[in-house]
Amino acid sequence: MTNTVGHLIGGERVLTGGRTQPVYNPSTGEVCGAVELASVETVEQAIANAAAAYPAWRNTPPAKRAQVMFRFKMLLEENADEICELISTEHGKVLHDARGELQRGIENVEFACGIPQLLKGEHSKNAGPDIDSWSEFQPLGVVAGITPFNFPAMVPLWMWPAAVACGNTFVLKPSERDPSSVLKIAELALEAGLPKGVLNVVNGDKEAVDTLLHSSTVQAVSFVGSTPIAEYIYSEAAKNGKRCQALGGAKNHSVLMPDTDLENAVNAMMGAAYGSCGERCMALSVAVTVGDEIADKLVASLKEQIAGLKVGSGLDNSNEMGPLITADAQKKVKGYIDAGVEQGAELVVDGRDLVVPGHENGYFVGATLFDKVTPDMSIYTDEIFGPVLAVVRVDSLEEAIKLINDHEYGNGTCIFTRDGEAARYFTDNILVGMVGVNVPLPVPVSYHSFGGWKRSLFGDLSAYGPDAVRFYTRRKTITQRWPSSGVREGVVYSFPS
Amino acid sequence: MTNTVGHLIGGERVLTGGRTQPVYNPSTGEVCGAVELASVETVEQAIANAAAAYPAWRNTPPAKRAQVMFRFKMLLEENADEICELISTEHGKVLHDARGELQRGIENVEFACGIPQLLKGEHSKNAGPDIDSWSEFQPLGVVAGITPFNFPAMVPLWMWPAAVACGNTFVLKPSERDPSSVLKIAELALEAGLPKGVLNVVNGDKEAVDTLLHSSTVQAVSFVGSTPIAEYIYSEAAKNGKRCQALGGAKNHSVLMPDTDLENAVNAMMGAAYGSCGERCMALSVAVTVGDEIADKLVASLKEQIAGLKVGSGLDNSNEMGPLITADAQKKVKGYIDAGVEQGAELVVDGRDLVVPGHENGYFVGATLFDKVTPDMSIYTDEIFGPVLAVVRVDSLEEAIKLINDHEYGNGTCIFTRDGEAARYFTDNILVGMVGVNVPLPVPVSYHSFGGWKRSLFGDLSAYGPDAVRFYTRRKTITQRWPSSGVREGVVYSFPS
Amino acid sequence: MTNTVGHLIGGERVLTGGRTQPVYNPSTGEVCGAVELASVETVEQAIANAAAAYPAWRNTPPAKRAQVMFRFKMLLEENADEICELISTEHGKVLHDARGELQRGIENVEFACGIPQLLKGEHSKNAGPDIDSWSEFQPLGVVAGITPFNFPAMVPLWMWPAAVACGNTFVLKPSERDPSSVLKIAELALEAGLPKGVLNVVNGDKEAVDTLLHSSTVQAVSFVGSTPIAEYIYSEAAKNGKRCQALGGAKNHSVLMPDTDLENAVNAMMGAAYGSCGERCMALSVAVTVGDEIADKLVASLKEQIAGLKVGSGLDNSNEMGPLITADAQKKVKGYIDAGVEQGAELVVDGRDLVVPGHENGYFVGATLFDKVTPDMSIYTDEIFGPVLAVVRVDSLEEAIKLINDHEYGNGTCIFTRDGEAARYFTDNILVGMVGVNVPLPVPVSYHSFGGWKRSLFGDLSAYGPDAVRFYTRRKTITQRWPSSGVREGVVYSFPS
Amino acid sequence: MTNTVGHLIGGERVLTGGRTQPVYNPSTGEVCGAVELASVETVEQAIANAAAAYPAWRNTPPAKRAQVMFRFKMLLEENADEICELISTEHGKVLHDARGELQRGIENVEFACGIPQLLKGEHSKNAGPDIDSWSEFQPLGVVAGITPFNFPAMVPLWMWPAAVACGNTFVLKPSERDPSSVLKIAELALEAGLPKGVLNVVNGDKEAVDTLLHSSTVQAVSFVGSTPIAEYIYSEAAKNGKRCQALGGAKNHSVLMPDTDLENAVNAMMGAAYGSCGERCMALSVAVTVGDEIADKLVASLKEQIAGLKVGSGLDNSNEMGPLITADAQKKVKGYIDAGVEQGAELVVDGRDLVVPGHENGYFVGATLFDKVTPDMSIYTDEIFGPVLAVVRVDSLEEAIKLINDHEYGNGTCIFTRDGEAARYFTDNILVGMVGVNVPLPVPVSYHSFGGWKRSLFGDLSAYGPDAVRFYTRRKTITQRWPSSGVREGVVYSFPS
Repeated sequence: MTNTVGHLIGGERVLTGGRTQPVYNPSTGEVCGAVELASVETVEQAIANAAAAYPAWRNTPPAKRAQVMFRFKMLLEENADEICELISTEHGKVLHDARGELQRGIENVEFACGIPQLLKGEHSKNAGPDIDSWSEFQPLGVVAGITPFNFPAMVPLWMWPAAVACGNTFVLKPSERDPSSVLKIAELALEAGLPKGVLNVVNGDKEAVDTLLHSSTVQAVSFVGSTPIAEYIYSEAAKNGKRCQALGGAKNHSVLMPDTDLENAVNAMMGAAYGSCGERCMALSVAVTVGDEIADKLVASLKEQIAGLKVGSGLDNSNEMGPLITADAQKKVKGYIDAGVEQGAELVVDGRDLVVPGHENGYFVGATLFDKVTPDMSIYTDEIFGPVLAVVRVDSLEEAIKLINDHEYGNGTCIFTRDGEAARYFTDNILVGMVGVNVPLPVPVSYHSFGGWKRSLFGDLSAYGPDAVRFYTRRKTITQRWPSSGVREGVVYSFPS
Repeated sequence: MTNTVGHLIGGERVLTGGRTQPVYNPSTGEVCGAVELASVETVEQAIANAAAAYPAWRNTPPAKRAQVMFRFKMLLEENADEICELISTEHGKVLHDARGELQRGIENVEFACGIPQLLKGEHSKNAGPDIDSWSEFQPLGVVAGITPFNFPAMVPLWMWPAAVACGNTFVLKPSERDPSSVLKIAELALEAGLPKGVLNVVNGDKEAVDTLLHSSTVQAVSFVGSTPIAEYIYSEAAKNGKRCQALGGAKNHSVLMPDTDLENAVNAMMGAAYGSCGERCMALSVAVTVGDEIADKLVASLKEQIAGLKVGSGLDNSNEMGPLITADAQKKVKGYIDAGVEQGAELVVDGRDLVVPGHENGYFVGATLFDKVTPDMSIYTDEIFGPVLAVVRVDSLEEAIKLINDHEYGNGTCIFTRDGEAARYFTDNILVGMVGVNVPLPVPVSYHSFGGWKRSLFGDLSAYGPDAVRFYTRRKTITQRWPSSGVREGVVYSFPS
Repeated sequence: MTNTVGHLIGGERVLTGGRTQPVYNPSTGEVCGAVELASVETVEQAIANAAAAYPAWRNTPPAKRAQVMFRFKMLLEENADEICELISTEHGKVLHDARGELQRGIENVEFACGIPQLLKGEHSKNAGPDIDSWSEFQPLGVVAGITPFNFPAMVPLWMWPAAVACGNTFVLKPSERDPSSVLKIAELALEAGLPKGVLNVVNGDKEAVDTLLHSSTVQAVSFVGSTPIAEYIYSEAAKNGKRCQALGGAKNHSVLMPDTDLENAVNAMMGAAYGSCGERCMALSVAVTVGDEIADKLVASLKEQIAGLKVGSGLDNSNEMGPLITADAQKKVKGYIDAGVEQGAELVVDGRDLVVPGHENGYFVGATLFDKVTPDMSIYTDEIFGPVLAVVRVDSLEEAIKLINDHEYGNGTCIFTRDGEAARYFTDNILVGMVGVNVPLPVPVSYHSFGGWKRSLFGDLSAYGPDAVRFYTRRKTITQRWPSSGVREGVVYSFPS
Repeated sequence: MTNTVGHLIGGERVLTGGRTQPVYNPSTGEVCGAVELASVETVEQAIANAAAAYPAWRNTPPAKRAQVMFRFKMLLEENADEICELISTEHGKVLHDARGELQRGIENVEFACGIPQLLKGEHSKNAGPDIDSWSEFQPLGVVAGITPFNFPAMVPLWMWPAAVACGNTFVLKPSERDPSSVLKIAELALEAGLPKGVLNVVNGDKEAVDTLLHSSTVQAVSFVGSTPIAEYIYSEAAKNGKRCQALGGAKNHSVLMPDTDLENAVNAMMGAAYGSCGERCMALSVAVTVGDEIADKLVASLKEQIAGLKVGSGLDNSNEMGPLITADAQKKVKGYIDAGVEQGAELVVDGRDLVVPGHENGYFVGATLFDKVTPDMSIYTDEIFGPVLAVVRVDSLEEAIKLINDHEYGNGTCIFTRDGEAARYFTDNILVGMVGVNVPLPVPVSYHSFGGWKRSLFGDLSAYGPDAVRFYTRRKTITQRWPSSGVREGVVYSFPS
């Protein structure tokens, strides 16, 4: 018998007896639980609870709200092992990778601890004669977050801690594929002192999403997922008058200049291409080599490293790479590899036939390396979301930049070089939101903000960091002048008391 | 024979021989010119010119871009009389009111002069060991602005000076009803040194608007107008993946507390209700009186003041109020007054029959005052955009706040009181973006930002001021680590030169 | 046999067998311990330890330094009872007051947790063509703090958490009168992970202070104490080329307008005048009444409240006021009361003869109230640092402002009124650094900064909050241009690897 | 008969008939005027005028104060030729160099135009329950500036535009050696609308300086000059309780790495070492070469360039270098060259015997180059303030950094390299306030701040840019709570009006 994961509404775990679907352990291919899919009514109940909790929470001083975040950080650290096991079991990523994810999430909680400082508005004395003017950044009300399977702990922590620290209440719809860690984390927030109803979690599918999008109570929507869904969310939210930030897909290129420190680059790229089985929106899936010399060395070196890569169950911390999330994903990734071969790329390492002993039904695909990939191939154009790295050979940095700028996505990119000018030229001219210089996964730290360009992000404000404070608040500008009332002039003795 | 106003594309005045429509002088009701309505091709030509001018302008250092703004400010001041006459002739507002509008616009140019300071990104040393991270706020590319008839000079100056100071190039579609001042101003920008193609102006109607909305080159759209159009713009822009800020309608309430300084309040309200014939999105159209005592005094005092109000041609600077923009507007406003009477409001002053001698065909409606208006009447629910002030009587501040918060709009509001606590309670709890305390028109100064709440603004960033810099730029975050290259270690003598 | 408190140097408790002096429990007048007074050599040893710890700590990423602060906050909360008992035993303040002090100190630690955000420098792309420029705020090196007896836990926490979060190492010389809590707190910092030598504590007297002032290693000095010593510290530090912030004495006035909410004001003033026996640099020691009506009511009401004030041992939490710090302080305060009577003030409540049963040797003085005090009296001109409140009667707000602006100190002040205009006029025109409106002790919250004007603060930056980050860092501005190196142009294939 | 330059006090040119001294044209060695040296009384009169102008100016809204700066910028541009001729005549620098100086000064005026934005304080809603807190940055009152001869136009413009934009009034004591341009500039400020008395200029010597330092009216002092005087100013100002920023001397090193782009570096260094005859606190006077290969090339290349350097009268714009400021300066610089030879440095190019035909009495010294200079020589330890460049040869970047960090000054420095890691390592570890990467004179742009480290700056805030706004303002923090007054509750009808 499996355990059914439900919702967290008004501070209580809720199961309504509605539709469910199974949850799998991707390392074994076995069902490890079930998740209930929220109906319109259930989502509306969550929204109603958030709305009810809003007035009191909004009026709680920011410094008090921060106290919840301080305690929450400590509880996350104390419960890290349990959370990571939940992540690994349902997602498949190796425990140490789950720990890295959680750590990044905790850093977002740390940022939220600074909310009294972050919420400061701007004050102008004498904007006019005896007139003062200032801005306040007030919470929006009820806001919603919709998050993907690949970072079940981290991406929700990008959103709701900042949102509730700003004084909002929240309805989170996480991925239904790996729902357990997010609920555990939400319970820790309650334990840390978050009042009931401030954070609500509903599991569900399109029905739940659409209920959030069409609710007139929900003021804003944050989304992370694929680009087609991001576009849907963004345009539906706009149609309903909401503010929205919708983060979509990626195809992240690294550029290797002739002066690349190759050892450093190869180590960096192994993790960035194959970590979490490539299921990261910041995964490096393309290596653009400038000149054949570096290309040849790179391919040789990667091939050698891949041979030693340890693939297996996420729950075995000695592994370096785990399975994909579902059997469908496994099939889709293998299909891309097939297509790459058909379309003429040189398959240097083939991960299609990998079998992990004892985990024969796990959704594994081995690390795969293509050389001589061209921009017309589907393994280049599409976000594969699997452990497939494509080497594209070019002759100059200009050519590399053109390639990247022509791609529909603009999430992350990276250049390997020792040369100041090449790095500066690249970072300046590249149409990508997050750029690394000798840093393969340029995910901004929690006190900066996360956001791609082009079809990788819809909206004007990025996720987490300073932008989150702006996204989750509404500017109010007050202009004030006081008429003289006689208190400080006139006949003060006769003032009525 | 009338003069036909065309477009400004690539630094040149352009007339294509396409569709035109007449431009009227509302003070006389006579045609004073014509305006050409841009076709899809004309708008696309403007976009193409903006795109062509972008790379060089984007790479011009911000401090150089600011020099254009410094000179532009001076030219606007030197040419103020001519600009104001153009505004007044085509819009109808009195010259001194046009001057006020222009002055506010110039202040936005002054703000843009500070762009080197405003564009600063955040730099973190040691975001990790030997890793630095910083943000850059880079321009978007080609952006568009769509602006209303009521502030033909000011609202465009809310948008494009900030946008181009940030390094963007711009296509402006102003109102086709009063197109001349905006073109004059654009020419002054060229004279100030703005390179050709950086700012383009196309006159037009829905065809022009839709071309901008559907262009894949246009990265962002700023709009000011009515709420239904704002909603259309916002959802269409989102559907096309653009960022958008769309400012819509308003119904601005002032609250008069029992301790109101009445003389101050009445003076303030006369200008705020009837200035520019009520055709302002920040016009005060509702006075909410707390207690009958202040209501009675207010109505009596306003009635007296209205009796002395000088209404007439905008070109006669001794007037205090001019005509409405069109015959249609005149008809619509009179219709609202009819409805107010029918629905039971007490018509204290009736402006329907006003005739201005010598300007019998001008689109005048006199200052109108209703008392005992209730929330169900159309003169309360709708934005009239005419010189009609409605007094609503309530018994408490709580009731006043509820009334305002229940209205669909949330642009501006104001409280008149001498009491610190009442003001603080009001500004805190009111769901309105711009709040005045004893300030009737709480338009934020140029170094703050302009934005309503609820259905008065769609988007997450407000107009002009600091928000404009964020709206017209895209965050790029760079994370940098340098591998040791031997330059400062190893055998330095043998380094290749 | 008493316990001798020594120093904390390089992470170890140190006793050198040097000079000592007794530590008293002011509630009983009995010796409760001894404190060693550091010699030149001992202070130099502390400085040397700080210098040795500096390079590694400076290079620790700010986010890692913040982790120490997060843990430190939790440890302070867990050990609050013990710390407060140490404070109360040696200082005499009532336990709940010690708890308040500690809480304020913890809030400074919370602020330091946000150091990654607070240390951000400003980055300008294209300061010139292809030239970038940015600022970094780098630590100073070894910095020193010298703190007073009246807040043994809080004032050190104003200083060193911000300083070490910025990357500095620290030598603290706290008050030798109540040395135990500060050492306990320093040990908790070590437990939280602060590396040895980053924070050093030396107890001592002028010899220790002068050693710090003359050390060429010490880069900056923060001081809180009396004005004559502040002046000495400030000029000596300057003579030795150091940066310095030296906070001195105060005489804080409250102004009661005719429309004062009296009950609120009296409650507020009881705590602000008599809390901690008046030994606070933010204590309210003067009440300026505008008009005799409010004066008469105030004096009557205070007299009644004072009658019920519970004075006794600091270790009994049911008390509201404890003893003064020393027998000397007791004698000095009584001397001021004598002088007030001689100089003609009206002594409404006389605290000179108070005896606390069972604590006959404690350094108690009862709450004392003078009416009709004039600006020439020593109870008005001097900072008494005891439970003495002086009422000065004036006829207008202008007169009240002149009185306050003419006083040599300008630390804190407060106005009681309901009137927006009176409050704004007062806060604008008063030459005082921290101003309350209906808030009797306007100590800024930890994310703002603390600083008086006139002879209450010497230096340009205030204590704690944002200013502390500037005070404890040095701006470095980097301007960078990269010459083209051929990597991205030229013959890329032949580049040497 | 020569013209005597006096003072500008209360908006009027003032000559008191007091002590005078001659002003020379350094290009000819002839007297070109005289300057009156202010007595104590004259300086006190200037201070009194500044004090009288303060209240009205302080209450002028920042946006109005900015208008003066906008017009002042334009007037400076329109009068640039005249100003530069005055600079060149009295200082000797070549006209184009004077133009560069003036341009930099104008950029400080541009920065001051943004004062409404720059003065914004921080506002916290709900710092506690219903308690708001915010900071205001208020002007100090009368502040003083004392400026050096080498940038007679620019350095005063670093100070007073920011100071007066902040609302202060100012007394400037410029260098008595080249007094004319500063007075011309001050008159343009009046023409731009600066009220009389807001800016006062007194010429003088130590008597004037000490009067400023001892005045109880003067709140702050900004100084730029030599280090011994800076120390005197800093400690005297502190002794008198003032805030002070005192910028002193420099010995700016450039480091040439083996991968230096030599052509770029040599061009850069010619201007940086010999421009303005080396009389700049940012002049590059030491070249540290890493490895003999780059050293040999550098010396050969500089020697060749020096041979073509055109030296002559400042008023002839075809020249590249002019004379020193005085005969004494000429003698002193030649003495240093003598000492360099005696102490064993290799004199590659000797400028001692330079004669400029037609200007035989001008204070010329030719560009001088020493190789193989060691740290013990006086040409290395001292700031020569003349056209003398010393090459010091080292073997590694570490050695170069140690050399620089051991020098008493820390104003500016620069590294020439193409290597990202070397640049980052250098900028991180160097104890210098302004650091260039391939930028020889890393003077921060006007919207950053100027400040050295070590004995090059005394104080905690740098000159101009954001720091100037902090230096010229005092933080006031207001904490506000409103008691309920019955206006919005209770029986509103009976409220007294």
